[in-house]
Amino acid sequence: MAGTDRTGEWISGGPAIVLVEPQLGENIGMVARAMANFGLSDLRIVNPRDGWPNEKARAAASKADPVIDGARVFARVEDAVADLSYVTATTARPRDSHKIVIGPAEAGARLRARMEAGQAAGILFGRERFGLSNEEVDLADEIVTFPVNPAFASLNIAQAVLLMSYEWMRSGEELAGRPRFDAPAAPPADKADLYRLFDHLESALEERGYFFPAERRAPLTHNLRNMLTRPGFSAQEISALHGVLRALRKAPRDAS
Amino acid sequence: MAGTDRTGEWISGGPAIVLVEPQLGENIGMVARAMANFGLSDLRIVNPRDGWPNEKARAAASKADPVIDGARVFARVEDAVADLSYVTATTARPRDSHKIVIGPAEAGARLRARMEAGQAAGILFGRERFGLSNEEVDLADEIVTFPVNPAFASLNIAQAVLLMSYEWMRSGEELAGRPRFDAPAAPPADKADLYRLFDHLESALEERGYFFPAERRAPLTHNLRNMLTRPGFSAQEISALHGVLRALRKAPRDAS
Repeated sequence: MAGTDRTGEWISGGPAIVLVEPQLGENIGMVARAMANFGLSDLRIVNPRDGWPNEKARAAASKADPVIDGARVFARVEDAVADLSYVTATTARPRDSHKIVIGPAEAGARLRARMEAGQAAGILFGRERFGLSNEEVDLADEIVTFPVNPAFASLNIAQAVLLMSYEWMRSGEELAGRPRFDAPAAPPADKADLYRLFDHLESALEERGYFFPAERRAPLTHNLRNMLTRPGFSAQEISALHGVLRALRKAPRDAS
Repeated sequence: MAGTDRTGEWISGGPAIVLVEPQLGENIGMVARAMANFGLSDLRIVNPRDGWPNEKARAAASKADPVIDGARVFARVEDAVADLSYVTATTARPRDSHKIVIGPAEAGARLRARMEAGQAAGILFGRERFGLSNEEVDLADEIVTFPVNPAFASLNIAQAVLLMSYEWMRSGEELAGRPRFDAPAAPPADKADLYRLFDHLESALEERGYFFPAERRAPLTHNLRNMLTRPGFSAQEISALHGVLRALRKAPRDAS
């Protein structure tokens, strides 16, 4: 999926990603890479087991160096979120808390709304083995969980960060009110052009007895015209189809 | 984020995930894990570099054994999608094709709608280094791209599969309360059927020198296959097109 445009603008911003006591440098690197893919840049690490900087993290980040270089380390979760005014905690299971539990898409939209209102926001991600403690979840305003298969819920932190970063990026697209997919590059030809193709095909078929006996003509023509109308062929495509018909009307080369 | 409920039901189903010539077993394993997280189970691998089964894949799958055990290997992309009737290709960059380009959420919803209409569907993922070839993209009905940071677009295949699997799961939640959109009246034929039509047309054109000189063959074929893929012809329509081709290959009646 490599497709980086080196001339493109490096998007940065978005909510802070707060990793609580991550163990493996590789996971931190994969988190940085996931963030960079979707334009997030503020990485905060609480008490990483193997210290910081961490060369394994840099290697796994696949050149997401601006994120790795800008990462900050904190001793406690409270310190890492001190300057934020809205914090979402990610959890794998429902918790016995009285907080609102939302899905990733809704969380992306809420984070976007807060940040556009000038509020600093962030997302907490727990330890590889046991996630966030109840006390850490208490520090958050809301809880986000992922709609995973209940019999196989093993998102790792890099995957969880990827999904939240993706939803962050997507919330911006949705709010921008943009069309969600591009129309085909070439517009459909006008109908006169299409009908000339019908004529060409039908006269070639007529010559070869395809419409015999005569009562077959109407249903066969109806079917062919429907099939050729549905795709919305462009003028260039119709021209190519005329070329195909001209070729097929010729005798085979080896028989000529 | 470990939170598997061993008593929970193992969700399975969803679109086929087709990996084209993956190199690293670890990536295949991470793909299986991402699929299992979101309830997908049909993994198809085209020509894996290190053969199959692959112990590194199993280790990286983190106990997503049902997906690994059920994986099937194919020699060519055409074989891997032969029984499907709707195929989406993932690409990192816009391509010079006339297919509709959509985002992952849209793709999840469209795959869901097709499958609920009883059509078999799948998603193609390209090689680690250079993705899918143009010819492979031609085999798909639509293209999905991810809304990544243009200056840092380095989603790997496991991440791309994770996002699509997540959107698949999410489309089910969203559609549960919503009107579904209608499938076309006659479902598209499966791909094996479509490819036999390509063969028939291309051999008829070949006989008549349409592809001469030889360097014209690739662009002309690319264009024709795109044009014939886009409409989603039904099995009956494809059968009618074979009839048209058989008729056109005959000499005109008055000349015979």
